[in-house]
Amino acid sequence: MIRISIDAMGGDFGPEIVIPGLATALERHPDIRFVIFGREEEVKPVLDRFPTLAGSTFHHCDVAVRMDEKPSQALRNGRWKSSMWRSIEAVKTGEADVCVSAGNTGALMAMSKFCLRTMANVERPAIAGIWPTLRGESIVLDIGATIGADAQQLVDYAVMGAAMARSLFEIERPTIGLLNVGVEEIKGQDDVKDAARILREIPLPSLEYYGFVEGDDIGKGTVDVVVTEGFTGNIALKAAEGTAKQFAQYLRDAMSRTLMAKIGYLFAKGAFDRLREKMDPRKTNGGVFLGLNGVVIKSHGGTDALGFASAVDVGYDMARNKLLDKIASDLSHFHKSPVGVAFQGEAENDSEAEIEPQA
Amino acid sequence: MIRISIDAMGGDFGPEIVIPGLATALERHPDIRFVIFGREEEVKPVLDRFPTLAGSTFHHCDVAVRMDEKPSQALRNGRWKSSMWRSIEAVKTGEADVCVSAGNTGALMAMSKFCLRTMANVERPAIAGIWPTLRGESIVLDIGATIGADAQQLVDYAVMGAAMARSLFEIERPTIGLLNVGVEEIKGQDDVKDAARILREIPLPSLEYYGFVEGDDIGKGTVDVVVTEGFTGNIALKAAEGTAKQFAQYLRDAMSRTLMAKIGYLFAKGAFDRLREKMDPRKTNGGVFLGLNGVVIKSHGGTDALGFASAVDVGYDMARNKLLDKIASDLSHFHKSPVGVAFQGEAENDSEAEIEPQA
Repeated sequence: MIRISIDAMGGDFGPEIVIPGLATALERHPDIRFVIFGREEEVKPVLDRFPTLAGSTFHHCDVAVRMDEKPSQALRNGRWKSSMWRSIEAVKTGEADVCVSAGNTGALMAMSKFCLRTMANVERPAIAGIWPTLRGESIVLDIGATIGADAQQLVDYAVMGAAMARSLFEIERPTIGLLNVGVEEIKGQDDVKDAARILREIPLPSLEYYGFVEGDDIGKGTVDVVVTEGFTGNIALKAAEGTAKQFAQYLRDAMSRTLMAKIGYLFAKGAFDRLREKMDPRKTNGGVFLGLNGVVIKSHGGTDALGFASAVDVGYDMARNKLLDKIASDLSHFHKSPVGVAFQGEAENDSEAEIEPQA
Repeated sequence: MIRISIDAMGGDFGPEIVIPGLATALERHPDIRFVIFGREEEVKPVLDRFPTLAGSTFHHCDVAVRMDEKPSQALRNGRWKSSMWRSIEAVKTGEADVCVSAGNTGALMAMSKFCLRTMANVERPAIAGIWPTLRGESIVLDIGATIGADAQQLVDYAVMGAAMARSLFEIERPTIGLLNVGVEEIKGQDDVKDAARILREIPLPSLEYYGFVEGDDIGKGTVDVVVTEGFTGNIALKAAEGTAKQFAQYLRDAMSRTLMAKIGYLFAKGAFDRLREKMDPRKTNGGVFLGLNGVVIKSHGGTDALGFASAVDVGYDMARNKLLDKIASDLSHFHKSPVGVAFQGEAENDSEAEIEPQA
């Protein structure tokens, strides 16, 4: 059985999409037990419409974190008592194996850090996203937990991303690429070049270091895990999302302009439906907070029930495949290696310097 | 008359695509005069096939910079004598108004900096790219001239990008956005936040500062000019290119899978052709080096004659609209303003610190 704690008040639509999403996820994975947090008067009526969810536990919370609250505000108003806080806390107390929320990213990360704390050996948590590629799916991190990452933090991201790839794609030794502006060794930011040196020098059984990759390698699926710092990762992700929307718009315009195009569309409707399904962002919904003493999944705030169910699926896979144990053992393996120890000494620990997550 | 110097040996295919590209550009703009540099034995036979190019000047050069040469190597082997160097030098001596090359980016930037030098008040040159959007086209810079940019350099990019937008789109007061991970004022890298402060405080007649934009705003066309430092800009551009290729591949797969889809494709062929034309990367070929005492246009190395002609078109527009004068006057306007002067004092000039361009 996998126990998943749910912040039912998160997202643009709250329980109205969260609860139906849980019902969908439960159909796929009947061994889930949900622990749901939210305002009784809003959650219960929706919950009652889904008899399959009768096995879930429900906890009333007075406070719901708003989508526009700043992280510091959210902490002030919602610590200890909001549905967001209590769903995270359920992971800490062991009541749940993983937490899923569609609440605002900054608040969710701030509360997760405050409640769960970063793992030993990890300086900063990262948000890992699932990126559809020509080969299937890849993991990209950090997509916006913090701005800037030094070489050691990038290496930690690589180790954590590899553990996630093993949990999600069930491959033994995922390939890792460092995102850079060229594939030659002389190019790039110093931190990226230093991280490359470490990954080359420390052979890790849990991952295969591929080398540098460029922006267009992400969509090609050149590697299983793409590692970058949060500013660039966030912008790359959104630039790609923008391009996908642009293409979809061009296609819609082209197919509705002439009678011939409209007839063609009708014939090829099945193909267009498959294409739409393939491009559906709801299928890859679910950013994973890595590096904390507990797994928290962030769903898109604007998604629908199907999208929320995908985020729950991601949480299910992470818990079932014991992501946290994998990360802990891989990180300790790395930090015990001679180069890892030497390197660890070079860097200062600044995990507490950053209070407010940046995206 | 606009005089354009051409490095005929640049790109993956050299004169075989460069010369036909010139013929195409000349059809569109009969007032161009080309000054062509290259190996006589390779260029002349192709040139003879295009009688319309008879009015061009040709200069033989023994040396051609290879596509895989490092900037330092290219400078050592090709300075004073390569077709790349001499086509840039033609801009310096006044023989040409603008230079176009499909040669390797690093070498072309290194030679351009060495030969033309950065403009007064500019610390670092930038490469500006043309990005197709839902509203038309936008300019994005820096897409890879250097890694990192401080607040003042970002402001210089804004001023230079605005001058380019006025030259290319012929709008009076282009809108400028700073690329960031959120639109709230508290978010982002310190340099980006400082640049925002300066752009807000110094009203410039040549541009309208919009605020922060996110990755997906580029494709939406939210602003005319998107400003970012070169590492992020390069990765965002390539991530978007990767997504466009991915979408095109999905579409091809979908349209060839079933008989119905194939029939639909035949009906809608006109629409698909228009879509292909809309997405054609050759139409937006041509990165503009900004911040040097002369304009150099970098064409994609792998493009064909049509793509090279687009790069020549960009050069033509830049020269005809006196881009360099616009930049010089806008920059001096900014640096003479009280805030500009105060700010200028804070920053050190590191224009010569970076010898090797990074992408």
